[in-house]
Amino acid sequence: MGELVLTTYDWVPEMPRGLVRDLRVRWALEEAALPYRVATTPFHDRGADHLAHQPFAQVPWLTDGDLSIFESGAILLHLAGLSERLAPSDPKGRTAVTEWVFAALNSVEMASLPWFLMAVTPDAQSGPIWQRWEDWLKLRLQRLEPVLAEREWLVGKFSVADILMADVLRLPDRYERLADYHACSAYLARALARPAFAKAHADQMAHFAAGDELVSALS
Amino acid sequence: MGELVLTTYDWVPEMPRGLVRDLRVRWALEEAALPYRVATTPFHDRGADHLAHQPFAQVPWLTDGDLSIFESGAILLHLAGLSERLAPSDPKGRTAVTEWVFAALNSVEMASLPWFLMAVTPDAQSGPIWQRWEDWLKLRLQRLEPVLAEREWLVGKFSVADILMADVLRLPDRYERLADYHACSAYLARALARPAFAKAHADQMAHFAAGDELVSALS
Repeated sequence: MGELVLTTYDWVPEMPRGLVRDLRVRWALEEAALPYRVATTPFHDRGADHLAHQPFAQVPWLTDGDLSIFESGAILLHLAGLSERLAPSDPKGRTAVTEWVFAALNSVEMASLPWFLMAVTPDAQSGPIWQRWEDWLKLRLQRLEPVLAEREWLVGKFSVADILMADVLRLPDRYERLADYHACSAYLARALARPAFAKAHADQMAHFAAGDELVSALS
Repeated sequence: MGELVLTTYDWVPEMPRGLVRDLRVRWALEEAALPYRVATTPFHDRGADHLAHQPFAQVPWLTDGDLSIFESGAILLHLAGLSERLAPSDPKGRTAVTEWVFAALNSVEMASLPWFLMAVTPDAQSGPIWQRWEDWLKLRLQRLEPVLAEREWLVGKFSVADILMADVLRLPDRYERLADYHACSAYLARALARPAFAKAHADQMAHFAAGDELVSALS
């Protein structure tokens, strides 16, 4: 393992604060108690250096020595390889973590993110199309509910799959869409009660607040 | 490695034929020339046995001996561990494959699948909301274009990341949304020209056609 450097924006508007995906990486790093530092890339000017690390001009990316990794799912699987606090160490457990990481991102978030984008689009929350997004989200939560009713964490013990699934569930929860899914709600509450989440969230909020101060000092 | 068994539906309606995600797994298995057999689960009756393998009541899943894996991304990463034809063998190359697998599924498909769902929803292809989905898809393609202009495959040599990215690009291509992105189009054409894709696609079409015959024989 080389030096771990997490790169995120220097600043973002108020709305996405607490939701920027560097949170997932901070959370994992805090769970594992791995040493890391945070670097920034300009939010307003996403140039060639940014694209060299993250071709879709998003954040975060992580460097581990001379290795640069983008996509929060890939970063968390990489970190899981560095610490037993982030995944079981047996091959079967590792495969289960991988499948649940994809389930969080490609099955649950695949429904919840479009739903969220509609939920924040003016005049989009009515009619048959809105109902279609609502139904898709419900379908995923209905299937997740019995899974979470039977287990504390997705894969035997807490893992990066839980970090991703819990972070994905935060958006529907914010709009009270977990109210009918008691196991999902309880699971999310368990995950968010972990000190590493609280630290990661507070650190992200403080990071972007510091960005505000820098902007105001320079303007 | 145990016996590899790919499970998909016994039958699907005409529209999704050629698009069911077992295609991704068939393609990878054909590229690697790994022996496998195909098993079926009822499309119309998704019971407890189905949910035990795939909690979201979808397909495919793969069993490798006593290991059962769902999510096409997780299955393809597992197969990549079984064959050098599916990924580079050095750690840096493997990390790059993982990040591009997530990029295909969580950055590109995250935009293209909601777009496709709107594209097939009656009366949904006009107005500011439709434009929003069109713009989101374009944003991803615009970022992918310079990446693919510079390389034959995403990660040095052909890998499971290309199987997923190409399969994801098939949907926008079907609706002529790649027309302005020549590198994306050329990349997709290169990928689909591979004999393993042709075999996988033909096998899926034949599989569901056989399902038709079974239904008509039984009714």
